[in-house]
Amino acid sequence: MKDMLDFDAYEVGFDIPAKPGMPEADIQTPCLVLDLDALERNIKKMGDYARAHGMRHRVHGKMHKSVDVAKLQERLGGAIGVCCQKVSEAEVFARGGIKDVLVSNQVRDLAKIDRLARLPKLGARIIVCVDDIDSVADLSAAAVKHGTTIECFIEMDVGAGRCGVIGADKVVTIAKAIAAAPGLKFTGIQAYQGAMQHMDKYEDRKAKLDAAIAMVSEAVTALEAVGLKPELVSGGGTGSYYFESNSNVYNELQCGSYAFMDADYGRILDKDGKRIDQGEWENAFFILTQVMSHAKADKAICDAGLKAQSVDSGLPTIFGRSDVQYVKCSDEHGVIADPDGVLKVGEKLRLVPGHCDPTANVHDWYVGVRGGKVEVVWPVSARGKAY
Amino acid sequence: MKDMLDFDAYEVGFDIPAKPGMPEADIQTPCLVLDLDALERNIKKMGDYARAHGMRHRVHGKMHKSVDVAKLQERLGGAIGVCCQKVSEAEVFARGGIKDVLVSNQVRDLAKIDRLARLPKLGARIIVCVDDIDSVADLSAAAVKHGTTIECFIEMDVGAGRCGVIGADKVVTIAKAIAAAPGLKFTGIQAYQGAMQHMDKYEDRKAKLDAAIAMVSEAVTALEAVGLKPELVSGGGTGSYYFESNSNVYNELQCGSYAFMDADYGRILDKDGKRIDQGEWENAFFILTQVMSHAKADKAICDAGLKAQSVDSGLPTIFGRSDVQYVKCSDEHGVIADPDGVLKVGEKLRLVPGHCDPTANVHDWYVGVRGGKVEVVWPVSARGKAY
Repeated sequence: MKDMLDFDAYEVGFDIPAKPGMPEADIQTPCLVLDLDALERNIKKMGDYARAHGMRHRVHGKMHKSVDVAKLQERLGGAIGVCCQKVSEAEVFARGGIKDVLVSNQVRDLAKIDRLARLPKLGARIIVCVDDIDSVADLSAAAVKHGTTIECFIEMDVGAGRCGVIGADKVVTIAKAIAAAPGLKFTGIQAYQGAMQHMDKYEDRKAKLDAAIAMVSEAVTALEAVGLKPELVSGGGTGSYYFESNSNVYNELQCGSYAFMDADYGRILDKDGKRIDQGEWENAFFILTQVMSHAKADKAICDAGLKAQSVDSGLPTIFGRSDVQYVKCSDEHGVIADPDGVLKVGEKLRLVPGHCDPTANVHDWYVGVRGGKVEVVWPVSARGKAY
Repeated sequence: MKDMLDFDAYEVGFDIPAKPGMPEADIQTPCLVLDLDALERNIKKMGDYARAHGMRHRVHGKMHKSVDVAKLQERLGGAIGVCCQKVSEAEVFARGGIKDVLVSNQVRDLAKIDRLARLPKLGARIIVCVDDIDSVADLSAAAVKHGTTIECFIEMDVGAGRCGVIGADKVVTIAKAIAAAPGLKFTGIQAYQGAMQHMDKYEDRKAKLDAAIAMVSEAVTALEAVGLKPELVSGGGTGSYYFESNSNVYNELQCGSYAFMDADYGRILDKDGKRIDQGEWENAFFILTQVMSHAKADKAICDAGLKAQSVDSGLPTIFGRSDVQYVKCSDEHGVIADPDGVLKVGEKLRLVPGHCDPTANVHDWYVGVRGGKVEVVWPVSARGKAY
């Protein structure tokens, strides 16, 4: 600890919460902690599932924003590459050595399209989503300018109610325009039903996905009829991957949260009515926090508030504890109900955040631990890459 | 634009959303935009108020986390220094040249106390809060070790229900211990009533503050009786500063949000029942966002979602527009109801975020604009400094 403070943190002004080899007890809070054993088990499990079902797994990099985690997913989970949501994220992954990168989103700003069009020069396959025929000319011009190929997915709105076109006819029209445009390649369909991933009941999720699959099937049939059979049909998340995997129409998954888990996802139920964080996936992602005030007997104050997490999907839970509860969140503090006064100032707790993606995005570092020791410290490489 | 992409962003991998001199229209989204005219008016107004009421103004640096904004507050608003919530933030402000820095929070971790104790060596006055007599020995030992002086405020809980002691007797007990401890100096009282700042009605806020002032007055009297008259009595926020300023017991304000304003604070009412963002303070802080999909006629999708803001205090409003409304937020997208289909893809909008502090904390840059041009690009210097 002393070394770190004497050199890195204080003199250089470069703030790291831990160093490899350090005892877990010395990690500076609040920070993100990864249970490497649990993370690796999650990654292997989803990789095995995808392989057994003949699915490509394009892991969702926007969840963790980490080149290191993406490479672990390639190595242990057979991931074929990543998807992410922004061009600046794609730059980070491509520069980091990921060879197949999908921006699972529209890119419309001309400056961003220019950046996107240069990315294949880094040696990566680059795919982007299109939901408007008006954007085809812009993408094509940029690819021609840089002498690269931008591959395109048509994004379908299969129930998320956000971006994406509805209807096989629109898919065919845009696909034809892409196929005819210099510098572009029509590669497939993006069809992620984001809105159903967090529905509690398996049967409710299945009904939504059945509807999505029907829409995608119709589009694939229509594309085949005009000689534009899609190479890839991509979608699927932690709450639905078994539906896409058995659909006979999707051939690529895009799961993200399974690797880390969070409190909100953890509450959804599997086919047998069991929470998915009670068997299907393990909590591997935590905010480590420390009690820093206990001036009232029944209330402990910890150092992880709104600047250490996103509470859009609810407050965090305290891992492995039922005697104390995180009940309130302000900018820099969490209030923990401690009715029996069991917590001590200085004590550290693992919080399971409500929502992993935006929580990862406020931190600069992942501290990977195993057997009570810090094993790795990884940057959140694409943190804040929102452009 | 081309310059920036050719050099900074793409080649170096250093992502800035704008460059000084650039037209506002070319700013890359999503990013934070400061209306410099409005910001300067807010800063001058609060500075004038504090001066007229004989109050020191210690601006709350945890709101903006920016050395540049803090220095503007010193220059235009007569700020005497900053307060902030974490040792790592205090390091940033002290290194940046702020000479009077209060950590308006408890610091209990020994490694953090060690960092705190070294900060006076940078030439800054350093004050920290104490709400537990057990921490006095740790603070004292660290100050002695480094040959510095750590000044101490006793934090009182005057209604926030978080950190802080309740009762004049406890204040006196801890103040005596601090006064007797080598390396420490008892300087005053921290008494911020955070819980009432966002109550809509002026009279409700006044009632809470009256109670707080009574508690603080009692403590000051008790301290004077033992020869420990506090040099500073500090507190007050954007929803209460007029109460502390007329209390005859506080002599230091700690306002933060007044400089930027946000949608949640803007809704509270002044003495005359008028929203405080309709005259008292101006919106100077925005998330610039761009429409990037409009595949459905009545719905525009913009590029600022949960990773561009914190929605803990509600969704953002769209500045200057009543015809369109930000109605839903996901990780990377905002859904804007556009019933008349007036928005075009590529169009940029200014969002007023629900809560300024945690929103600033997810961004790396402030883009300061004036007269349609980018004038400055400032780093969010203490972004992510949560330790």
